Amino acid sequence: MNLGKVTGTLVASRKEPLMEGLALLVVRQLDEHGSEAGGYVVAADSVGAGVGEVVLYASGSSARQTLSTKDKPCDAVIMAIVDQWDVDGETVYVK
Amino acid sequence: MNLGKVTGTLVASRKEPLMEGLALLVVRQLDEHGSEAGGYVVAADSVGAGVGEVVLYASGSSARQTLSTKDKPCDAVIMAIVDQWDVDGETVYVK
Amino acid sequence: MNLGKVTGTLVASRKEPLMEGLALLVVRQLDEHGSEAGGYVVAADSVGAGVGEVVLYASGSSARQTLSTKDKPCDAVIMAIVDQWDVDGETVYVK
Amino acid sequence: MNLGKVTGTLVASRKEPLMEGLALLVVRQLDEHGSEAGGYVVAADSVGAGVGEVVLYASGSSARQTLSTKDKPCDAVIMAIVDQWDVDGETVYVK
Amino acid sequence: MNLGKVTGTLVASRKEPLMEGLALLVVRQLDEHGSEAGGYVVAADSVGAGVGEVVLYASGSSARQTLSTKDKPCDAVIMAIVDQWDVDGETVYVK
Repeated sequence: MNLGKVTGTLVASRKEPLMEGLALLVVRQLDEHGSEAGGYVVAADSVGAGVGEVVLYASGSSARQTLSTKDKPCDAVIMAIVDQWDVDGETVYVK
Repeated sequence: MNLGKVTGTLVASRKEPLMEGLALLVVRQLDEHGSEAGGYVVAADSVGAGVGEVVLYASGSSARQTLSTKDKPCDAVIMAIVDQWDVDGETVYVK
Repeated sequence: MNLGKVTGTLVASRKEPLMEGLALLVVRQLDEHGSEAGGYVVAADSVGAGVGEVVLYASGSSARQTLSTKDKPCDAVIMAIVDQWDVDGETVYVK
Repeated sequence: MNLGKVTGTLVASRKEPLMEGLALLVVRQLDEHGSEAGGYVVAADSVGAGVGEVVLYASGSSARQTLSTKDKPCDAVIMAIVDQWDVDGETVYVK
Repeated sequence: MNLGKVTGTLVASRKEPLMEGLALLVVRQLDEHGSEAGGYVVAADSVGAGVGEVVLYASGSSARQTLSTKDKPCDAVIMAIVDQWDVDGETVYVK
């Protein structure tokens, strides 16, 4: 799983029927120290995350293990909003 | 999931029988800001995308979760045509 | 899925019994414009590809979706021989 | 599977119900020689690993093959604490 | 699938019960020409490979398709010992 910051939203009206109802968010990847890691992913949201929030997301087939993404052509899902993380004995981020 | 722009088409007459009927498109990867990210993928099309369109595609086993790709040796599928996306409060792309 | 050129063959007599009968080919990865992309993969061949041919291959669990690779410890399969592909309105490759 | 060092912990109270009860650890990736490889992953812990320990973790669908991660939206799991590893005839690490 | 050279062994006594009995080897990745590619993986051994041998390994869910790795939290498996491979009409390696 990886850390990211929700930076935006995506709208797509013409899509696979199975994608209906999925909220799609743009997630900028963060490194272990909370800096931007240089990549992004578009992820389905299963926890009601909003722009600006720091989240944890899962990729691949694991992204289909939530109620909202089950059996859908979706390869990334936000499944937690991060409250805090610590690295090397220091708090990197606190909500 | 990742953003891409459909840049071309691919024809293959000699193929695994399961690949029959799949439309194969060349998709150039875009970054979060709509710039070319330097990579590409060949994806099956499940939504009738055309050359020049900005699309969302899924990879891995998730690419087999559409009606057209189910149980096929296909690891990337276009499952949405993007209408608009916003990042950092600004509209990056609108169709 | 990605484009590649078959550059060689691989022989392995001591192997997992499930690998028996699979033809293993070395595939050099090509970019969208047909140039060598700097990587390679060893793929099982499901279409009778030969050295020098330009092919399409699938990776991951999708590589097990052909008759010859089903349930085998194989993570890449050649499932099409490319006749032609076009990018940005120009023909990149024709067989 | 890859080697890593547990460097931190992560707390997330708002999450997919399936994530309840999973201990989430920050794992800094190590290369073959025990040096930091420049990446990290957030992994579920199935063996009671603590900060500072050198561990082995699995990614992708394989991360869901432990009792604690089964059917969960989790794509990385720590499934072993490393006692020792040797490379090129020399001991790289011993606990 | 990728080519690698077995460079070492790994011992872990505290591990997920499902990992019991798996031989874990350090595999240095080789490129198409037999040079070291700069990466490594820890793989389960399903063919009795030894340090110094050149092997073929599979990653992801395909790594769980051998008798010894089935349903285990293992994402890489050595499933063949390479006898020979040829690239561009030349023999790169012969055992």
